[in-house]
Amino acid sequence: MAAGTAIKTDIDLKVAGELAQQLRVDSIRSSTSAGSGHPTSSMSAADLLAVLVSRHLRYDWDEPANPANDHLIFSKGHASPLLYSIYKAVGVVSDDELMTGYRRFGSRLEGHPTPILPWVDVATGSLGQGLPDGVGVALAGKYVDELPFRVWVLCGDSEMAEGSMWEALDKASHYKLSNLIAIVDVNRLGQRGPTDLSWDMEAYRRRVSAFGAHAIVIDGHNLGEIDRALTEATDNPTDQPTVILARTRKGRGFTEVEDREGWHGKPLPPDMAERAIVELGGERNLIVRGPVPDPAAARAGRGSHDGATVTLPTYKVGDKVATRKAYGDALAALGARPDIVAMDGEVSNSTFADEFASKYPARFFEMYISEQQLVAAAVGFSVRGYTPFASTFAAFFTRAYDFIRMASISQANIRLSGSHAGVEIGADGPSQMALEDLAMMRAVQGSTVLYPSDGTSAAALVAAMADTDGVVYMRTTRGAYPVLYKAGESFPVGGAKVLRASDADQVTLIGAGVTLHACLAAAEQLKSDGISARVIDLYSLKPIDVDTLTDAAAITTGRLVIAEDHHPEGGLGSAVLDALTGVGRVDLTVRHLAVSELPGSGTSEELLNAAGISADHIAAAARSLVS
Amino acid sequence: MAAGTAIKTDIDLKVAGELAQQLRVDSIRSSTSAGSGHPTSSMSAADLLAVLVSRHLRYDWDEPANPANDHLIFSKGHASPLLYSIYKAVGVVSDDELMTGYRRFGSRLEGHPTPILPWVDVATGSLGQGLPDGVGVALAGKYVDELPFRVWVLCGDSEMAEGSMWEALDKASHYKLSNLIAIVDVNRLGQRGPTDLSWDMEAYRRRVSAFGAHAIVIDGHNLGEIDRALTEATDNPTDQPTVILARTRKGRGFTEVEDREGWHGKPLPPDMAERAIVELGGERNLIVRGPVPDPAAARAGRGSHDGATVTLPTYKVGDKVATRKAYGDALAALGARPDIVAMDGEVSNSTFADEFASKYPARFFEMYISEQQLVAAAVGFSVRGYTPFASTFAAFFTRAYDFIRMASISQANIRLSGSHAGVEIGADGPSQMALEDLAMMRAVQGSTVLYPSDGTSAAALVAAMADTDGVVYMRTTRGAYPVLYKAGESFPVGGAKVLRASDADQVTLIGAGVTLHACLAAAEQLKSDGISARVIDLYSLKPIDVDTLTDAAAITTGRLVIAEDHHPEGGLGSAVLDALTGVGRVDLTVRHLAVSELPGSGTSEELLNAAGISADHIAAAARSLVS
Repeated sequence: MAAGTAIKTDIDLKVAGELAQQLRVDSIRSSTSAGSGHPTSSMSAADLLAVLVSRHLRYDWDEPANPANDHLIFSKGHASPLLYSIYKAVGVVSDDELMTGYRRFGSRLEGHPTPILPWVDVATGSLGQGLPDGVGVALAGKYVDELPFRVWVLCGDSEMAEGSMWEALDKASHYKLSNLIAIVDVNRLGQRGPTDLSWDMEAYRRRVSAFGAHAIVIDGHNLGEIDRALTEATDNPTDQPTVILARTRKGRGFTEVEDREGWHGKPLPPDMAERAIVELGGERNLIVRGPVPDPAAARAGRGSHDGATVTLPTYKVGDKVATRKAYGDALAALGARPDIVAMDGEVSNSTFADEFASKYPARFFEMYISEQQLVAAAVGFSVRGYTPFASTFAAFFTRAYDFIRMASISQANIRLSGSHAGVEIGADGPSQMALEDLAMMRAVQGSTVLYPSDGTSAAALVAAMADTDGVVYMRTTRGAYPVLYKAGESFPVGGAKVLRASDADQVTLIGAGVTLHACLAAAEQLKSDGISARVIDLYSLKPIDVDTLTDAAAITTGRLVIAEDHHPEGGLGSAVLDALTGVGRVDLTVRHLAVSELPGSGTSEELLNAAGISADHIAAAARSLVS
Repeated sequence: MAAGTAIKTDIDLKVAGELAQQLRVDSIRSSTSAGSGHPTSSMSAADLLAVLVSRHLRYDWDEPANPANDHLIFSKGHASPLLYSIYKAVGVVSDDELMTGYRRFGSRLEGHPTPILPWVDVATGSLGQGLPDGVGVALAGKYVDELPFRVWVLCGDSEMAEGSMWEALDKASHYKLSNLIAIVDVNRLGQRGPTDLSWDMEAYRRRVSAFGAHAIVIDGHNLGEIDRALTEATDNPTDQPTVILARTRKGRGFTEVEDREGWHGKPLPPDMAERAIVELGGERNLIVRGPVPDPAAARAGRGSHDGATVTLPTYKVGDKVATRKAYGDALAALGARPDIVAMDGEVSNSTFADEFASKYPARFFEMYISEQQLVAAAVGFSVRGYTPFASTFAAFFTRAYDFIRMASISQANIRLSGSHAGVEIGADGPSQMALEDLAMMRAVQGSTVLYPSDGTSAAALVAAMADTDGVVYMRTTRGAYPVLYKAGESFPVGGAKVLRASDADQVTLIGAGVTLHACLAAAEQLKSDGISARVIDLYSLKPIDVDTLTDAAAITTGRLVIAEDHHPEGGLGSAVLDALTGVGRVDLTVRHLAVSELPGSGTSEELLNAAGISADHIAAAARSLVS
């Protein structure tokens, strides 16, 4: 903070009121200087945040990593001018940075908050995500950290239309998250006009109460009411989460825009900004700090995660083991590490996460059928430094794609396991078949995408996932197939295995999961035809083993058959083509076998055959290449 | 139906009770014969459906296309044995088909219902989607069809944990969908154990009421209570949707499984099935039919959509026009067709759907910030034969990916327009940047993916979208760029434009959207270096113009630069590689420029430059290929 500036603590409401005006002025100044941003959405919440930050939020601004700090999440991330103005007001961001950095290239003060800033837990800006993420942080605090921090989430009223907000409140009340306090800034106006519920505070109260939260309706511009509500929330003797429903006015404090339509997401032009600052009483440069956490609380926090001994399951080569079972076995083994937590979308007896749940019930969280909240919970645990594994059917992670995308922007470290991939699942039909998951997960920035074919590699890769940062996805298969690798074999992320090879190979067969087994069977068929086929287990789609693929292409003169239980776009085939064309000139003849038509029900064998990705199809494609 | 079988109509509750037992027996028989399926989840709802189908559902089973028919949607799609047993009971599916077809390869009686069956509106099986889809159908019925049909949706209790169900109820009450009746089968048990709320019927009532629905709590096995509730729902004098909360017992009717854990999704073994059928009073073969719609109602329905004259907007070459603006202009022009309806996720002043909204307010539906319901509404309108266009920021369609995936399985015809794609959007930062949308949309079965670069092509392609079946996606750009094409130029879906070409071309530059403009600028740079570059506008990613790409690759000896404002996986680059390698041997040298790192805020120019996809980068990549 600026040298020589006196820090005010023990703030009374009069000073808090001054602070609120400062936050408004700085929200206007920063967004006007940037030429974009959301000043009016910041001004409606300024009183709420001024009282919170100066009198209730327990936060050591000099030590953002203090494990006992409260958490402050702006679910309405577009109110970033307000958040950054708070950072100025507590002395961790200078006025100069605010005025020259906001929304500028290379600055950490981005249009919507991201954890590039040490005080930001999660990236927001896609509405309806901050509260679910906050549920994850509060779960960690209450059940695993066992620390007395509170999680404060500023929500917009528009985002209450997102179903994910209700998934969050449902889980918050189910898990009795009395450490979670949502503050809803009911400013009545969305982007293009009034919100669905406008200022119907009683409708909000009924909904929030029905979902099990303690609802407090206040005038969000009455500092005394705000202060009492925040006190009531922190003194909460119940086991309910609290939702403070604050009736506010968008653009509060500047008559020309207050409660008027047409001012969402627009900075004030310089002349209006000048008039607004005058109306708001001019610029201020208060430096205020609220309470800090009890030092004893931080000391009570958990210690290191290191030192646990993990003994992975082993399988006998040739035995039939489903990779989803190996996932469950390995996850349960990894549970020896106290940093491992797991959660599932009410299908843990299918994903085999139930093995972890029964062994480590205190670190397992049933999220029921709410995949958005499932992923958000994982993000929340990542914020607290845990190593979360979340599982459901691979198809149903599509439900949470926006959350997965945002987890990447949040630089969260989450591990996702999707079971029941592809047409291989059989009779349940296409609604349960993941056929887009590899494309979806590969397209996430910085992601890791794994797709083991046998129990040994699956177990090894589950262990590798725990030590891999970012969004890490494993696709597992429903059915049981022969174990291919001996226990102890190493499967580095970014590697591949060459399962059959000779210098005389004429064609390369590339598969993963169920199609790798088909490739192996096809190679046997081809052998009896006198054709020598190389077979690659592409267990790591991203990163990918470029060298192994390049070598194989060179040896087999560019002849490749790629088979995948996935739609043709964005999966195994794309990963291979991207890898091979990424290194220079290529001469390729490719047969890409994938699921092109809409599948129905049937047995695995019938459906793999109908999709044209069975051993017979692979062998036929290979023959067509070498003839 | 079987010849000579007497059809019962005017069913009393005694017969309805017999029907319920028949539905249970047939649910058991069909799933046991298939060796998989969900008999217990069917048995809990059998009484509800028996009374509904025999006494309240107005449906002409001989004419499923009758526009005045009620709609019956199984949001709990796993109860397909019950649905198919109903089809047997009304005489449209034979017992033989039920017993030999259910879940078998090639059969229309799939594991979860799909519209391969003429009586099924939408594919279900991914929980939490049938009710949002039903909201779309009910919106169409109440506001555009203006027909008196009702939409009945059977919901599971587990799926009430999905946020999408609350998005649906919120919109159902907002739009006063008194023609929508949800029946929640509260059987207490999910897949792996008790649900979140178990049998807390009052909690359900509070939540449903708070969301604006008329809640009726009943014993779901008391035929009289069911009948009164269904009557109350259809006599509904209010403008509220109705939610019947029925307390039921999973596996009802067979003591060995009734209300017991461990029986979700499991067929009864043959010996248990035998005992169950005995306990249920044996097999029956009732053919029963309930009421049919008033023939006058059908006649009152809308006529043909044909005959309207659409005059597309035109733009002057060289003028700067944002493709999102052209989307809005063209959609408003298309509105002359009465089959066109539009909906938006509370950002219509950004997507420019507001142009349609102001011109055709009766056919525009504001879905607020609930992207899942946004897409589901489009699906519902597709069910009713309309041509829906749904729009939001491209990034936020990730929120609805599971709905988009299921729309494809539903064979719905929906058009999605995603604006604000890529880093081009500038200062708002990564949360608002669609960088995965092309991968996500290409991976949808049967999808069409369009990405115009100028106003003329955007407008033409919006018109083409209206006449293209399946899931059709258009990506639009925030900023305004020069119009490249004269009005009237044709842009067939699956085509591409060669904007610069000569026989001496040494390299091909491929772009779409903002990168096409960068490719054109790069080509100018290269020309001054004496390098002749071909430039392709790849406005249709799926289907793709293989011939144009193959010709270009041949002429420029395989030297390609592909630039896209998207992550490297699954987008433009993948589409080109898939196309070129799909036709045979290829000899390629590719430079693929895409957004690899996490972007921040900045101007479009700064961010395109930082991502390495500007004209300078394209020119440099081209030079490296021809040097």
